[in-house]
Amino acid sequence: SLSRDLDPALLEDFMNQVEAARIGQNLKDLSSKPHMATTKGDEELVQLILKAWRDPQTGLDSATEGQYEVFLSFPDPEKPNSVAVVMENGSQAFISQETEKNLTADQADRDVVKPYAAYAPPGNPKGKLVYANQGKMSDYEYLVQQGIDLNGTIAITRYGGAGRADKAINGAKFGVVGVVVYTDPGDINDGKASATETYPYSWYLPPSGVERGSYNSHFGDLLTPYYPAKGFTYRIPEDQITGIPPIPTQPIGFEDAKTLICNLAGNPVAEAAWQGALGCVYHLGPGFRQDGLFSNASEVQVNVHNYRRINTSSNVMGLIRGSVEPDRYVLYGNHRDSWVHGAIDPSSGTAVMLEISRVLGKMVKEGKWHPRRSIIFGSWGAEEFGLIGSTEYTEEFYSKLQQRSVAYINVDIAVFANATLRAQGTPPAQSVIFAAAQQVKTAAADSSPSVYENWKQHFSRNSSVYGIIPSLGSLGAGSDYASFIHYLGITSMDIAYTYDRSKTSARIYPAYHTAFDTFHYAEKFIDPGFTSHQTVARTAGNVLMRLADALILPLNVSDYGETLQQMYSVAREVFQADLMHHNISLDPLWAAIDRFQAAAAGLNQRIANLREEANPSPLDVRMVNDQLMLLERAFLNPRAFPEKYYYSHVIMASRSSSLATFPGLADAYDNAKEDGQWGEVHKQLTIVIQAIENAASILEPVAE
Amino acid sequence: SLSRDLDPALLEDFMNQVEAARIGQNLKDLSSKPHMATTKGDEELVQLILKAWRDPQTGLDSATEGQYEVFLSFPDPEKPNSVAVVMENGSQAFISQETEKNLTADQADRDVVKPYAAYAPPGNPKGKLVYANQGKMSDYEYLVQQGIDLNGTIAITRYGGAGRADKAINGAKFGVVGVVVYTDPGDINDGKASATETYPYSWYLPPSGVERGSYNSHFGDLLTPYYPAKGFTYRIPEDQITGIPPIPTQPIGFEDAKTLICNLAGNPVAEAAWQGALGCVYHLGPGFRQDGLFSNASEVQVNVHNYRRINTSSNVMGLIRGSVEPDRYVLYGNHRDSWVHGAIDPSSGTAVMLEISRVLGKMVKEGKWHPRRSIIFGSWGAEEFGLIGSTEYTEEFYSKLQQRSVAYINVDIAVFANATLRAQGTPPAQSVIFAAAQQVKTAAADSSPSVYENWKQHFSRNSSVYGIIPSLGSLGAGSDYASFIHYLGITSMDIAYTYDRSKTSARIYPAYHTAFDTFHYAEKFIDPGFTSHQTVARTAGNVLMRLADALILPLNVSDYGETLQQMYSVAREVFQADLMHHNISLDPLWAAIDRFQAAAAGLNQRIANLREEANPSPLDVRMVNDQLMLLERAFLNPRAFPEKYYYSHVIMASRSSSLATFPGLADAYDNAKEDGQWGEVHKQLTIVIQAIENAASILEPVAE
Ligand SMILES: [Ca+2]
Ligand SMILES: [Ca+2]
Ligand SMILES: [Zn+2]
Ligand SMILES: [Zn+2]
Ligand SMILES: [Zn+2]
Ligand SMILES: [Zn+2]
Repeated sequence: SLSRDLDPALLEDFMNQVEAARIGQNLKDLSSKPHMATTKGDEELVQLILKAWRDPQTGLDSATEGQYEVFLSFPDPEKPNSVAVVMENGSQAFISQETEKNLTADQADRDVVKPYAAYAPPGNPKGKLVYANQGKMSDYEYLVQQGIDLNGTIAITRYGGAGRADKAINGAKFGVVGVVVYTDPGDINDGKASATETYPYSWYLPPSGVERGSYNSHFGDLLTPYYPAKGFTYRIPEDQITGIPPIPTQPIGFEDAKTLICNLAGNPVAEAAWQGALGCVYHLGPGFRQDGLFSNASEVQVNVHNYRRINTSSNVMGLIRGSVEPDRYVLYGNHRDSWVHGAIDPSSGTAVMLEISRVLGKMVKEGKWHPRRSIIFGSWGAEEFGLIGSTEYTEEFYSKLQQRSVAYINVDIAVFANATLRAQGTPPAQSVIFAAAQQVKTAAADSSPSVYENWKQHFSRNSSVYGIIPSLGSLGAGSDYASFIHYLGITSMDIAYTYDRSKTSARIYPAYHTAFDTFHYAEKFIDPGFTSHQTVARTAGNVLMRLADALILPLNVSDYGETLQQMYSVAREVFQADLMHHNISLDPLWAAIDRFQAAAAGLNQRIANLREEANPSPLDVRMVNDQLMLLERAFLNPRAFPEKYYYSHVIMASRSSSLATFPGLADAYDNAKEDGQWGEVHKQLTIVIQAIENAASILEPVAE
Repeated sequence: SLSRDLDPALLEDFMNQVEAARIGQNLKDLSSKPHMATTKGDEELVQLILKAWRDPQTGLDSATEGQYEVFLSFPDPEKPNSVAVVMENGSQAFISQETEKNLTADQADRDVVKPYAAYAPPGNPKGKLVYANQGKMSDYEYLVQQGIDLNGTIAITRYGGAGRADKAINGAKFGVVGVVVYTDPGDINDGKASATETYPYSWYLPPSGVERGSYNSHFGDLLTPYYPAKGFTYRIPEDQITGIPPIPTQPIGFEDAKTLICNLAGNPVAEAAWQGALGCVYHLGPGFRQDGLFSNASEVQVNVHNYRRINTSSNVMGLIRGSVEPDRYVLYGNHRDSWVHGAIDPSSGTAVMLEISRVLGKMVKEGKWHPRRSIIFGSWGAEEFGLIGSTEYTEEFYSKLQQRSVAYINVDIAVFANATLRAQGTPPAQSVIFAAAQQVKTAAADSSPSVYENWKQHFSRNSSVYGIIPSLGSLGAGSDYASFIHYLGITSMDIAYTYDRSKTSARIYPAYHTAFDTFHYAEKFIDPGFTSHQTVARTAGNVLMRLADALILPLNVSDYGETLQQMYSVAREVFQADLMHHNISLDPLWAAIDRFQAAAAGLNQRIANLREEANPSPLDVRMVNDQLMLLERAFLNPRAFPEKYYYSHVIMASRSSSLATFPGLADAYDNAKEDGQWGEVHKQLTIVIQAIENAASILEPVAE
């Protein structure tokens, strides 16, 4: 029937069929070999996923491969990158390790890519070493304030605090000619730094582990912003790429970093916040102290032999056709490519996706279930190089995705750690995630707490509407949801299991982007038994089924009202005095939010009435659902931030300001405090008001 | 029922009830007084329309007023603008007439605004006069080639050939300090220039008639591009406005122009294409010939006292609520404001709109009819100053208009002349306009030809699909449809009655934008008996009812395929050789068009199948209609032409090139021929391909 609602029995059936062991097997299959984007290992997984989705018993209605010609960056296999100490006489006093030590055999795989900074240019700059903390602008400024001349220096920086590329982009502004990046055991290992305290003896990063990564600030294929990277596509000249390191940059492990940092000269020592856990007092440099391993005249040389090339990257797309509204899409995706074996990142997510698609596919093939709406699964390529596969997909199909997508669910790293759910999303996602989390148990016993309760124990907030509830995080641009929410304005969410923050302060799970992110690591230290994987699969699958099958979409748009009100409170508290001084009133912003909240409440009332109807008209249901689905689109303004690629969501765009408020307004305010451009503040305020007024008009009765 | 289709009997009922006499009475009421935007006359018409749409017997479901604070330009009532000849001794040898001669009493109304060039800056520049033809770039270049130094000159130009503002913008680039614009009797009067051959003795423009107009290149409120001009809205500084005259500019009548031009010095005489019908041989200047009315030392002074101010302008919006799909909007509008009495422009259109809304309102109030979809009528304010009311409306409600609008119908000047229908629109509009035109007769007799047949007699083309059919024109930005089609990508059309081109070559009806555009003029010379008005009302109302009531939207999207193919043929013929030379292939463009055509044919087949179903599912119908409605949106790319305000429709945007092909591609090609930027050509080609591929994907089966 056109008015059939979600069947709770089918939901239960789904959850019961999700098997931890199968997820474990998926993970083993997916992470048995390195599968960096566009390599043979990646191509094998394309075939593995196509096969799964075309399985006659448990496959989907269809599965296809979408290909793009994308701009990538690799180290030269013949000429290893390195960071060296070169003495005055030209001879080499030290050279960094080429790659991770072979601790569990996996690291010896010939397809392990040696550590490098993707998109960093080749070159061999040499200079005195300085320690620049996290490579933030303020870090370099601090060094200059200390009287250090940065011109011609090599900066060593630790991961964290700033984007990867920013460490080099910032440094170059100060005359730095090369950048070394390392992982400080204080940031990643709760201070543990010895071989016996780290993997394979614990989950902590061994001294030789190096975090690889893409060093770029914009996502999507760098040569084709806004266009799908097809054969016919115009590509910008390479020299017009922005947001990548202008100078050679190389990551190293903390064993090597210790040799460099612990021998630095310079007085005074680095301030307390800059100190780490290498086991010595960090000095700033420049250069080495005379009484250390190296002579003071020694310099550091960064040797980078990266090259760039265009390769073919694949997305694998799987479809379950909607039975009632096939033109409504619930999207679920994760990237497939890793840096090395990628057991956790991304294969934990792909293992979960394959289990969800197996169970749903089986229900479809058995004729038990035909979802109301279409479900589209995406296994994205080349995420590690900058969310490329998912971005190109949204560029290729922007019209139909914008018109028809209900929501996008992302599960990348499914399990960072096995303590609690962690979810991010825009406000309308909160209601459906909560509903799912309340229905899933954290363990098999009937008495075990729900995912929701456990989550609330770990991360909660005091909502002005609901009281104490789990805290839904906001979406940045850390995984493939970025183009869905920021470019297309599709309600998006990211779901994972994560840490008990009372037990670790690790910046991320320690093996992240290293050759130690292996099946063995996952099985032994992250999620023995794969029960957290199972919990994530049940939760994300539950969300997916609700979005695909509920008669009325389970997106509570009034939750946007709370977020807007919070943002407004911050804006009023921090900006209002200055704004009044420049004749800019926040009252119209408040009026818009007030209108939005009234409109959302009114819509919720009409939905409640509709639910009470015995036989709601299918068109009345569709009309309400269109309001719910398309609300998020009203916050898009492609002209709001012309300098920020893809960021069009006026409420959720990135910001430089640390304030949790309207991003355009906050950044314009910070700038105006510097340069007096209060007109820009008024302009950004106008953009926010216009967006909220438009959003309100989407929720108001459709013909008034 | 949810699947009720259009009732032909109701269509007939509507057409029978449309009365010519009532349209005549409407026109009399609307044009009895001058009603320039935001004046008292305009405000009275706001009330008149609100009253009509709130009438208990014949009104609509609701009527509201929407207000904007818009940036306008007016002449100083105390200090008349003029064009004067000033002798060497400083005394005045000639001054232009302040306004039109009083020929039919209407011209003596105290509210007649004196001729001026809206947005031209005030000033009193003085210099030697040159004749610059139409003020195109090529015209000024030609003068320079003739050895004329344009620095410090006043240029007199005739209307036509270039946009109003361009005559001054172009001239200023050559050092021209002031511009005079006049209407040449050769362009507007079929050469007739004497008082006894012109109004009130014929429809031709009297010697004192002056075309007023807005001298701007961008539409919408000039201070608030992309934002609704509300109280809260950021406004750009006035000095950042682009596209308006940088130098004082003033329009005059041809009686005064004759005095200036026929006394010009200069050899050789202007070339044949520059000659007009003032009754003398046109010389180029500079300055006056010694043996004429003025001494050669005499200069021309342009005296402009215009001022700019922000006024409140109203749109009046009327609504008939849809009974089945209230969230689908069929929009119908016209501007309300005129330059003077505006009997033809715009009141002929408003008189038609009020008759359509009266008949439909009556059918609704009598309970005879409740349209499937909502109908929204708009009486726009301040169109004459640059389509301001309609543009601000689209800026205020862009989200819901983009999501929900089926089409926009514009009837501005309903009757230019009484010979034939003239329609413009994007390709999907063709089918519904043809259907309506075939159903409406040109006269009362049963034997009289249909509007369609008569139209085909006057304007036809040989379609590769249909053979000889009436020629649907394409939409520029000449009236209030501009922001609907170019900014929001809503299928739009403009409908009118117009000239028999074998009888006149007038650029436009001669009284256009003058004080002679009166009810008397309309009744006596344009449409005695208002039968053409009646025909337009029947045709446009028929289109409106079909769009509002047809079960399946009567928009034939496959007609876009023919247009794309025509554009492709031109591109291939003209560009291909050069493109191949620069390694740019048109093959992917053809592949995209081919895909589009196949997708459109497939959709049409599925629609045909759906029509055969006895009881089509309401959701199946809705899904197909969404494809038809939203196709046009797929051609939007807000990043395609960032320098062209509002133009986002990749296929229909404005272009400088004279070639009827893809505008971005054509202009980039022309530029590349000059500056060698073939990358820009490839980029624009990519944008077109991406848009057509997206459009095709909208028409393809929704879940494949
Ligand atoms: Ca791209
Ligand atoms: Ca505006
Ligand atoms: Zn990942
Ligand atoms: Zn990653
Ligand atoms: Zn008009
Ligand atoms: Zn006009």
